[in-house]
Amino acid sequence: MSAVQFSADGRLRHLITLEGVPRAELEALIETAAALRQTALRPVNKLPTLRGRTVVNLFFEPSTRTRTSFELAAVRLSADVINFDVGQSSTKKGETLIDTLRTLEAMRCDLFVVRHKENGTPALLAEHAQAGVAIVNGGDGNHAHPTQGLLDAFTIHRHKGDDFSRLSVAIVGDILHSRVARSDIHALKTLGVRDLRLAAPAQLLVPELRSVGQVFDNIDEAIEGADVVMMLRLQKERMDQALIASDAAYYAEWGLTPERLARARPDAIVMHPGPMNREVEIASEVADGPQSVILEQVGNGVAMRMAVMSRLLTA
Amino acid sequence: MSAVQFSADGRLRHLITLEGVPRAELEALIETAAALRQTALRPVNKLPTLRGRTVVNLFFEPSTRTRTSFELAAVRLSADVINFDVGQSSTKKGETLIDTLRTLEAMRCDLFVVRHKENGTPALLAEHAQAGVAIVNGGDGNHAHPTQGLLDAFTIHRHKGDDFSRLSVAIVGDILHSRVARSDIHALKTLGVRDLRLAAPAQLLVPELRSVGQVFDNIDEAIEGADVVMMLRLQKERMDQALIASDAAYYAEWGLTPERLARARPDAIVMHPGPMNREVEIASEVADGPQSVILEQVGNGVAMRMAVMSRLLTA
Amino acid sequence: MSAVQFSADGRLRHLITLEGVPRAELEALIETAAALRQTALRPVNKLPTLRGRTVVNLFFEPSTRTRTSFELAAVRLSADVINFDVGQSSTKKGETLIDTLRTLEAMRCDLFVVRHKENGTPALLAEHAQAGVAIVNGGDGNHAHPTQGLLDAFTIHRHKGDDFSRLSVAIVGDILHSRVARSDIHALKTLGVRDLRLAAPAQLLVPELRSVGQVFDNIDEAIEGADVVMMLRLQKERMDQALIASDAAYYAEWGLTPERLARARPDAIVMHPGPMNREVEIASEVADGPQSVILEQVGNGVAMRMAVMSRLLTA
Repeated sequence: MSAVQFSADGRLRHLITLEGVPRAELEALIETAAALRQTALRPVNKLPTLRGRTVVNLFFEPSTRTRTSFELAAVRLSADVINFDVGQSSTKKGETLIDTLRTLEAMRCDLFVVRHKENGTPALLAEHAQAGVAIVNGGDGNHAHPTQGLLDAFTIHRHKGDDFSRLSVAIVGDILHSRVARSDIHALKTLGVRDLRLAAPAQLLVPELRSVGQVFDNIDEAIEGADVVMMLRLQKERMDQALIASDAAYYAEWGLTPERLARARPDAIVMHPGPMNREVEIASEVADGPQSVILEQVGNGVAMRMAVMSRLLTA
Repeated sequence: MSAVQFSADGRLRHLITLEGVPRAELEALIETAAALRQTALRPVNKLPTLRGRTVVNLFFEPSTRTRTSFELAAVRLSADVINFDVGQSSTKKGETLIDTLRTLEAMRCDLFVVRHKENGTPALLAEHAQAGVAIVNGGDGNHAHPTQGLLDAFTIHRHKGDDFSRLSVAIVGDILHSRVARSDIHALKTLGVRDLRLAAPAQLLVPELRSVGQVFDNIDEAIEGADVVMMLRLQKERMDQALIASDAAYYAEWGLTPERLARARPDAIVMHPGPMNREVEIASEVADGPQSVILEQVGNGVAMRMAVMSRLLTA
Repeated sequence: MSAVQFSADGRLRHLITLEGVPRAELEALIETAAALRQTALRPVNKLPTLRGRTVVNLFFEPSTRTRTSFELAAVRLSADVINFDVGQSSTKKGETLIDTLRTLEAMRCDLFVVRHKENGTPALLAEHAQAGVAIVNGGDGNHAHPTQGLLDAFTIHRHKGDDFSRLSVAIVGDILHSRVARSDIHALKTLGVRDLRLAAPAQLLVPELRSVGQVFDNIDEAIEGADVVMMLRLQKERMDQALIASDAAYYAEWGLTPERLARARPDAIVMHPGPMNREVEIASEVADGPQSVILEQVGNGVAMRMAVMSRLLTA
């Protein structure tokens, strides 16, 4: 939980983590995203909401995909966008980072999307941000990726409706390295999911998660009768040691194949935050199959990021 | 020829190659470019045509110059532009490339300019593109560079008029490595050029080209009495072996000097796709001289790319 | 002085250096910047002044901070902006550089912000620029950084009023490597500053400067009774040899501490062009203290760059 993201009167000023964000706030964001999703279908896919405001993509960890989603969200609200790519090599020390923030604030930039490989950088910047300036966590270390958690909740809501308490949701894979899993769990618990199942190889599971859901050491039991199957990306680039014997071995034991998916409910949806390792954590037949909502997640991501930016800058 | 670029009713959906593009289509694009060229001279150099549409520059091969031309074409039609620079090192495999396309399509991007060092990548993406999404080949390997072919045809049309059948056109230089030459040849043949002359050192000539024009092994004969002299860039960066003894030796034998240009018609125009190797394939005196239309080609390139984008997205 | 920046009738066509720019021109730019600064406080922080015009950031020396300031200035005047980052490795030779300019001019780009590690590159481009095209020096070598000089003069004007002749201004630090110092000196002398003090370690002082101000070999005497204390960044990245024993030694002898600042007038303002080396040339207590106008300089920089662009393109 991050007290820094709320103003004294309880309003959301920054978005650092979904931990502690009230259910009413999550529902309001889902409702706004649903409305904004409609504008994406109009011939002129653009709203004047943030005209004259400036959004800065402050990415200390490269991610063209996520940066593009935030950039499109901003330009479709008519904001001006600055891509301030810092690169991994020049990761700044705390103090200099705050001078960078102060400098861009002095240029009258309004909202910063911050992505950093170290946990806590967006929160640090939020602590130092001027009144009126908003910080959005675009992913920090393995801590949080709150807009992903929101877009996943939004996607489930579109398919399964208002009552999250009836749903069985399985999150499967590399939970250890996954900021997505953390943010999904916070969103789903707050929205009322009671049957939350976490499945990972023992070496990729975080012991503390035992308190938030039921833990499984195999995928088959975890997805039995599930309404939602959320697969995680195997983040080999974040693994210090060889935690995984081979892609093929992981796929044999943990890959979501059509046979395995048959254990879930017939109307279960399959989710993945992307980019996918095909035939590692998921079979192409499933990824591209009728139960997959993976590409819809991508589109919902732009709408949800528009919702977050609108809410932080105009509420 | 690329069937993928036409819809069932014969409309141009993508622009992958000029091979097989009908004469009426080429003429319509030239006419549109001519009209758009006028808007570039107005004080407010901007049209609302693509407002709310998104153009992605998907460049797997870096080219600031070509990227800038497409970027300016898009912004002057009021489109939003995403520069998705992938870099040479991370050249993606076929399947992942298609996932990248799907992801950006899901974000509701409308047109992709694709540049890749491997032949066929834009065609591959066009095969997989969603309905309503357009792919423009921004140059692939030594296969095709269709917007360059179009802007060259447009430039010739501006100086020499409607009747291409009367023209003698010489293309001189590194034909082996030149996607520009291939696209120029397709445009010029379709527009009716009968006297097409191809001149290159033996090791830089493609034997198959003997069927499309008259082949010369020296520049002097090739440009004798020509209306148009199109010089190619010596693409040393694409040569696997040392095909050329030295810049000076190439210039002595193949460089377009004022003396050589005197063999062409007095009103002949000199073209080059840029960037030039001065005093290698062309003398500065010629490049900057009164017969040169090289800088006009650059300006016509923006107008033609506007024409292509408009036609693909609004036709 | 750079004659190239004036048209035959004395109008400012380019901004290469502040040397030789008349006082009336400086005052007009300060007045325009003051007006534009007000627009930055409005809810929609945008003017239509340069709609349909194209500004190119042609940066041969990377500087995200300065590039961002120019980019924001341009977009807030509704210009289209192209970031043409060339990178240090591909620094182009004179002739090719001019071909790059010609190419971008042919694409109808209107204003180029040029930053280069070699002195004279912006002036070279200005000499070759087409009629109607403006070059702005975004910093060249240790020669000049005229928009910084202007924003510093603007900042002093806001705090100390119209009469520069009454002011005592101290410039302290690495004057040898500082294009900022050179541009500040030109602006301040032209605006009438009589008591201009230059303080630097002997090895970081330029002998020729003795003619423009009083030279000091220590900071304490230099800032005694000063109205304005301008600290310079210690530019270790530009030092060929080890001109400085250590950061700590420099701080002990030359750092602006609260104790030292007490020697200046009680209402003295403290300036720094950024980015700061905290606890090297300046104490954090001073940088963040009540007399510091360092962040205001940053905001004034955007307004002044808007003023320069407007004046060059619409006057």
